[in-house]
Amino acid sequence: MDPAARQALQAAAGAENFSEASTDRLLYAYDATTSWHRPEAVIRAAGTSQISAVLAACTALRVPLVPRGAGSGLSGGAVPMAGGVVLDMSGLNRIIKIDPADQVAVVQPGVVTARLQEAAAAQGLFYPPDPASVGFCTVGGNVAENAGGLRAVKYGVTRDYVLGLSAALADGRVFTTGGANFKDVVGYDLTRLLVGSEGTLAVITELTMRLLPQPEAKATVSALFLDLGQAARAVQAVLASGIIPTACEFMDGACLKAVESYVGLGLPPQAEAMLIVDVDGPPEVVRRQAQDLARILRDRGGQQVQVALEPAEAEALWRARRAVGPAVRTIAPSILNEDVVVPLGRLVTLMAAVHRIGAEHGLPIPTFGHAGDGNLHVNVMYDPSDPAQSQAAHRAVSEVFAVVLSLGGTLSGEHGVGLAKLGYVGARLDPVALELMRGLKRLFDPAGILNPHKAIPGPDILP
Amino acid sequence: MDPAARQALQAAAGAENFSEASTDRLLYAYDATTSWHRPEAVIRAAGTSQISAVLAACTALRVPLVPRGAGSGLSGGAVPMAGGVVLDMSGLNRIIKIDPADQVAVVQPGVVTARLQEAAAAQGLFYPPDPASVGFCTVGGNVAENAGGLRAVKYGVTRDYVLGLSAALADGRVFTTGGANFKDVVGYDLTRLLVGSEGTLAVITELTMRLLPQPEAKATVSALFLDLGQAARAVQAVLASGIIPTACEFMDGACLKAVESYVGLGLPPQAEAMLIVDVDGPPEVVRRQAQDLARILRDRGGQQVQVALEPAEAEALWRARRAVGPAVRTIAPSILNEDVVVPLGRLVTLMAAVHRIGAEHGLPIPTFGHAGDGNLHVNVMYDPSDPAQSQAAHRAVSEVFAVVLSLGGTLSGEHGVGLAKLGYVGARLDPVALELMRGLKRLFDPAGILNPHKAIPGPDILP
Repeated sequence: MDPAARQALQAAAGAENFSEASTDRLLYAYDATTSWHRPEAVIRAAGTSQISAVLAACTALRVPLVPRGAGSGLSGGAVPMAGGVVLDMSGLNRIIKIDPADQVAVVQPGVVTARLQEAAAAQGLFYPPDPASVGFCTVGGNVAENAGGLRAVKYGVTRDYVLGLSAALADGRVFTTGGANFKDVVGYDLTRLLVGSEGTLAVITELTMRLLPQPEAKATVSALFLDLGQAARAVQAVLASGIIPTACEFMDGACLKAVESYVGLGLPPQAEAMLIVDVDGPPEVVRRQAQDLARILRDRGGQQVQVALEPAEAEALWRARRAVGPAVRTIAPSILNEDVVVPLGRLVTLMAAVHRIGAEHGLPIPTFGHAGDGNLHVNVMYDPSDPAQSQAAHRAVSEVFAVVLSLGGTLSGEHGVGLAKLGYVGARLDPVALELMRGLKRLFDPAGILNPHKAIPGPDILP
Repeated sequence: MDPAARQALQAAAGAENFSEASTDRLLYAYDATTSWHRPEAVIRAAGTSQISAVLAACTALRVPLVPRGAGSGLSGGAVPMAGGVVLDMSGLNRIIKIDPADQVAVVQPGVVTARLQEAAAAQGLFYPPDPASVGFCTVGGNVAENAGGLRAVKYGVTRDYVLGLSAALADGRVFTTGGANFKDVVGYDLTRLLVGSEGTLAVITELTMRLLPQPEAKATVSALFLDLGQAARAVQAVLASGIIPTACEFMDGACLKAVESYVGLGLPPQAEAMLIVDVDGPPEVVRRQAQDLARILRDRGGQQVQVALEPAEAEALWRARRAVGPAVRTIAPSILNEDVVVPLGRLVTLMAAVHRIGAEHGLPIPTFGHAGDGNLHVNVMYDPSDPAQSQAAHRAVSEVFAVVLSLGGTLSGEHGVGLAKLGYVGARLDPVALELMRGLKRLFDPAGILNPHKAIPGPDILP
């Protein structure tokens, strides 16, 4: 790093928070994708005024800055592609308060999501967003990506819980939006504009999150299917039943085979799909709805339909789903894991198309995900050392995206665009809308220092 | 109107959709507030390409344009304060589709909200937002103001149902955002930026709204209280009970007296507050929760606690609440009706402060509203022909706002800023956030033609 820049950033960050050590530069080069790029320096965020000073210095110096939570993102959002500084937010991990009277939590962005869930539960309250990485991802990262997770069918996504925030702009100006109010229509909705903006508009320094009462009871129902189309139609039958499930998760046959060889749960090899449906609420409803769901799944061809009313039994039914992420990675050395969404009524068509595309390219495309939201994780598996496979894998992804768009769908439901989907954004977004987004970026970050080359395709402003 | 402007606007709008008739200019001078200002012309919106042409002409001519739904707004949002053109959207009232498989509705913005509710219900689906004006307000107006209504405690506000939209910018460019997908994190969230933007950023031409399954059953519980503080604490007990009510409505003694003299329901004169709590869901839960709520209300001092499980009985309990809007207007010739929100835990303090302020100024301030959201309608009643009362009324509003802000509250929960609260926005919003909002306005509408002098305080761009 340029000595003048080093000096200015050390002064702004505090020398003890500034590192150019090669281990740090390597550790902060990654997120949970395979993309990586070394930053020039790593700064540990220590508070709002320090963040403000660091940002002002970065803007003055034209040094890119990438805010980073736990680095568990699946779209390359925290990878510092333009070098510069990674701002590590994970040390700002204080739960400032859980307020049962106001039914809100005030947290620093580095709080691990599971810690917020636990702190809320300790007061009888409930923080619903539940991404798969809940044990290590941060609330700030969840807000930056508008993370979804398992309970979005009934409870919505991270956006639906952000009531207010404080943030620092690229030039160092600090501002607050919203508050602890459940309704607020004063001014434009900057709060929700920042949700999902992937660290490209501002650095969030504090969050006020809505909490709900804890549901009294839960149940889980699972079923296997010998036919993929049957399973897809069963999802639609569940959603048309009038029951609003907490989760409605799907895994295809390729996922089940991978899970079976990974953890050995005794899943039958002929199973072509599994559904896991959760409900929560008052105990008498949960019991009745679980029975109703079991009947719906059986009526639609579900086999080995199981109902779990106790947490331990439910956890057993969830074991296959929890193992699927790591399990699919054993199928081939590399993965292009996508996160597409289609309108609910088009899930059947999407599932069929993904399987056709996999067969045509001779590649496994294990598919699982949040069927109740129309949000599927499509995992194209390939060997990157084989150029033909590599090419086929990328072609398969393009073909999946084309199908998704032709069905009125979208390219990411919860992982974000980051770096991974940047090349496809132009195909999804209206060109006028994209121009407006570029205008928003210029308004919030005229020098273009905040997480460059992410979320929306350039022209990037940074030289 | 200047002849050249008239000619250009007639050409853009179609002569049959353009009127300068004095009756039209008078009819479109109003919304549901007492503010009014005559437009120079009224244009009936006839479709996207016509709206686009009209907007382009207005930008070229620097003629202000105010989009208007039903004119039922309570903040002056549709009053054409800068003259120019009112664009009447009410003719674009087609429900393009109700799609049970996708669980969405696609509508033109002029659809009356109750029509959308009915069309959804006809397919077993549910459009939850339920503003008091549901029978005549439009979905587009609801989106422009981010309308709330009676069911927001459980089901959220209009924003939570907007999945995608088409809109025209001030320069005539048309764009779409979102779609029929339940999750979508591609690009910045322009959809929700437009929600609540009060017609100042773009003219919405089509909306895709999420629908839910119809709840199976409903119940209503009501109670009277001899003490205001008791009622306020009962609200908090309800919200802390773990039950998420559909509605949790409050009326104070002044409201009850007004209702009694207006419709004569036999409400006892010594009642200082009434609560009406709705629950919905599966019938067995609704029954149990209604009994639980009745017990909670009784334990907290509720009198004449009534439980209605049948729609007709429930409607009888709701009669007082439905009459309160017109009833309070009989108390005095004029009204300053505010729409404040505080964090849930501060409702008791707010209610006490409002009553103190009313007593100090010698003015009735009947207060009712959506206590379950912390959102109260505070109605300062006065005689505008008495200058002292007029002054006292405006002072009382300022004092209420000061209390609300000191409690961390906000100045509007569902009516919007419009014109009515423009002078107070600076006290609520962070100055940096306000600067960003002005930048957003310039980005979307550089000439400042769209609904000038609304939503955020100037400097307005229009000369």
